[in-house]
Amino acid sequence: MTLSGDLLIGGANVRGSAATFAAVNPANGSPMQPSFAGATREQIDQAASLAWDAFPVYKETSLEDRARFLEAIAEGILALGDELVLRAIEETGLPRGRIEGERARTVGQLRLFAKEVRDGAFQELRFDPADADRKPVAKPDLRLRNIALGPVAVFGASNFPLAFSVAGGDTASALAAGCPVIVKAHSAHPGTSALVGKAVVGAVAISGLPRGTFALLFDVGFEVGQTLVADHRIRAVGFTGSRRGGTALMKIASERKQPIPVYAEMSSINPVILYPNALLGRGAEIGKSFAASLTLGAGQFCTNPGLIIAIEGAGLDAFIESAAATLAEAPAQNMLTGGICEAYRKGVARLLAASSVSLISSGKNGTAHQASAALFQTTAAAFLANPELQEEVFGAAGLIVRCHDDSELRRVVESLEGQLTIALHVDAEDVAAASQMIPQLELLAGRLLVNGFGTGVEVSPAMVHGGPYPATSDGRSTSVGTLAIYRFLRPVSYQDFPVGLLPTPLKDVQAAARVQK
Amino acid sequence: MTLSGDLLIGGANVRGSAATFAAVNPANGSPMQPSFAGATREQIDQAASLAWDAFPVYKETSLEDRARFLEAIAEGILALGDELVLRAIEETGLPRGRIEGERARTVGQLRLFAKEVRDGAFQELRFDPADADRKPVAKPDLRLRNIALGPVAVFGASNFPLAFSVAGGDTASALAAGCPVIVKAHSAHPGTSALVGKAVVGAVAISGLPRGTFALLFDVGFEVGQTLVADHRIRAVGFTGSRRGGTALMKIASERKQPIPVYAEMSSINPVILYPNALLGRGAEIGKSFAASLTLGAGQFCTNPGLIIAIEGAGLDAFIESAAATLAEAPAQNMLTGGICEAYRKGVARLLAASSVSLISSGKNGTAHQASAALFQTTAAAFLANPELQEEVFGAAGLIVRCHDDSELRRVVESLEGQLTIALHVDAEDVAAASQMIPQLELLAGRLLVNGFGTGVEVSPAMVHGGPYPATSDGRSTSVGTLAIYRFLRPVSYQDFPVGLLPTPLKDVQAAARVQK
Repeated sequence: MTLSGDLLIGGANVRGSAATFAAVNPANGSPMQPSFAGATREQIDQAASLAWDAFPVYKETSLEDRARFLEAIAEGILALGDELVLRAIEETGLPRGRIEGERARTVGQLRLFAKEVRDGAFQELRFDPADADRKPVAKPDLRLRNIALGPVAVFGASNFPLAFSVAGGDTASALAAGCPVIVKAHSAHPGTSALVGKAVVGAVAISGLPRGTFALLFDVGFEVGQTLVADHRIRAVGFTGSRRGGTALMKIASERKQPIPVYAEMSSINPVILYPNALLGRGAEIGKSFAASLTLGAGQFCTNPGLIIAIEGAGLDAFIESAAATLAEAPAQNMLTGGICEAYRKGVARLLAASSVSLISSGKNGTAHQASAALFQTTAAAFLANPELQEEVFGAAGLIVRCHDDSELRRVVESLEGQLTIALHVDAEDVAAASQMIPQLELLAGRLLVNGFGTGVEVSPAMVHGGPYPATSDGRSTSVGTLAIYRFLRPVSYQDFPVGLLPTPLKDVQAAARVQK
Repeated sequence: MTLSGDLLIGGANVRGSAATFAAVNPANGSPMQPSFAGATREQIDQAASLAWDAFPVYKETSLEDRARFLEAIAEGILALGDELVLRAIEETGLPRGRIEGERARTVGQLRLFAKEVRDGAFQELRFDPADADRKPVAKPDLRLRNIALGPVAVFGASNFPLAFSVAGGDTASALAAGCPVIVKAHSAHPGTSALVGKAVVGAVAISGLPRGTFALLFDVGFEVGQTLVADHRIRAVGFTGSRRGGTALMKIASERKQPIPVYAEMSSINPVILYPNALLGRGAEIGKSFAASLTLGAGQFCTNPGLIIAIEGAGLDAFIESAAATLAEAPAQNMLTGGICEAYRKGVARLLAASSVSLISSGKNGTAHQASAALFQTTAAAFLANPELQEEVFGAAGLIVRCHDDSELRRVVESLEGQLTIALHVDAEDVAAASQMIPQLELLAGRLLVNGFGTGVEVSPAMVHGGPYPATSDGRSTSVGTLAIYRFLRPVSYQDFPVGLLPTPLKDVQAAARVQK
């Protein structure tokens, strides 16, 4: 397929009329063909108008039709073959194995949501039968279902060019819920976005869906995204990115005439708490696996373990020695964009300059376009006194907080902001102490894990990839796993409807998930 | 019981140290004994601190213990006997039948949530089993449950002194979810609030729960409420009241260091669409039942039908004639407070003064403390040109919008803001036309009803008492019915937890509502 650099609106290629930009190969800084053109306000309006028109039809597609549509997108992505893989590698600097793995995850995610749609439980069908004889007043016939919120604006993430981009988790769950989707592609991988966008447009066409069901817009800046979030036809937002970007969208959404929900996944340093017995028994081993997790994908995972909290002692020394040695051998890696690499270096420089922080180890040097891992340490007292040490340094930088005792460790944990994940490393003898802390940790993160690191995010029914602010804008939700569909639904109750007026799923009362006894 | 006018903090009577106020009998304007004293910042802090301490214990109470606690509150309210009924009548001007009915609803609501708690489905237990052999990486053991958000601030509503006040729907659902509750009593019925508060405190004590599980605060102004919503230990808000009050709390909540959800039920004019065949066949009958619904409880229901939309013709004439005649016989009624009565009169005066609006009928005159019903009409063109005609006039005031034809009727519907309810009156011949409009109505309201009025709100699993902004602050939720519990929960995922560290409900994987196949 020849990439045109066009927007995808109403199923057609439309040349953007705003400023143009090109993808840049982050491995060498070279610009790539073609030039992509941003969307104007008129073009955004056109996409929103088509999405609004598509909405009443798309939201009432049968579960089977909607499931097949999601599967057709998955097929379309696989059919792109190596062209997609090569373009994604070139645009992101990520290795082939990672891109192929991410493609498998993206396709698997779409198929999982197809299964979730067929299952139908997300509709939350409920039926309270009428009772004409009830005193003091007759009881009405009440039926309830969840309906889709409306067109959703999805922002592609820089760090998951497939799994959290054009047909990634936000798009898959919004489409599964019955919402048309308008994607604002991330400008770091526009070619990858365009290829996947073509696959979605193809699936819309072969599924016979309204052409406004999906659109793909480009922009080199922020205007397209901000205009979309302010548009009265957009009814929810899915975003993965920085805290600054996420809170800016939250503000726009809350100041609309009709405020809308923003599901923004923003920042997390994913604290890891190392317990004394685990450290004594396996300090070196944990240190090695920590270093591997820290440097995975150049540290560019939302669940990257950026903070270690532990009590000083021989176990922690062994951990540090092992982590430092492993990290010293870690090759420098390409980062996703020059801007991200620059921000990482600034973050590392900030830690290097902090008087209360010292460098333990750093990874190997690389090219001018690559980043080296870095591991720092500080004291609990310094960490508590300097809240800025909690700021995420996106990339393979970690900070160890050395605590004198359990009470200092608890104060450090109490000072934490909301997180996506918190990991505990424990041995059997640590369980009693750790269990005291679980109630506090539950309030701080969406996922707690034991003897592991958060970097692998399972896509399944029991996953929560979310957490209290500022990890996300809405700690009541997850952006990974089947529960993500509920972000884009709201309940509606139908009272005393004649069968002819009832929406199809509610005509058959036997299908109701919950019939009042 | 002698009313002391004290706050209830930590299970004890505490004399408020801020400004005092008295309840006023709205039927005659007389102040009542005793004097109630507002809470100071220190007293609010004390209540929040106790709630925070109670939270980890209360959220982990067994389902059976929590259900019994809710039932004990219900028992305690009934045990107050006629003292509660008489005080509520005196403070609200509502008749005995209404107060007794509302008490039954309040008690029924608490028992329904007890049943919901025992059922346990709200915990959303999920289990994805581990698979060590999965390629390319082993699959972890993942378990998920919903946990309570934290202490909740509940604002008593003026118009439901029992069912949406101290132990009303917000409190019952928050306690059911596992959240301690701090109630800011409505200053219009402090004595009723104090009596019910005593019943809750008694239930806390006999259930052996932490004394911070519940507190009751008074305030003659807004400061206590605003301070509570800004307090870092408060994690969600339940509110029923004006749009101005609700949006002010939304703003405070969104500007906190950690924003929290606000569930505010604010304003709704509950449009009623009358279809031509229904009007022709039963215009007079519908007019009579509309007038009865409009004047029920002096029109002080959130679901009061304030707007009629219909196409002109003989059927509408018959409706109007009948509604006008019924209304002309409607006795004047006490309103809940002097302030509410005053606001109602101003709202009616505003409509009387509007050049595009004409008075059709008004109810009988009463005492200086009573309000008379009023029915107005306007044209679709005028309604579309004057958005202020959509503003709620809280009380028994209705406005009929006369449309020339179906397309004008559709434009009127398109112009509507979010609502709690929309009612349709249809005969069999209207179903085809009405069904065209359902998709649009679903986006405008939380509950749609046919051939009835929204004033009766069933408390049951399939009820939605909610709706898009500005009807509520969060159209994804309901404040009545069992789904209300979900407002106060968030999911947490536990990965590879040893059994000893798992929260009790997740130890037994067979109990999981959803086990991944």
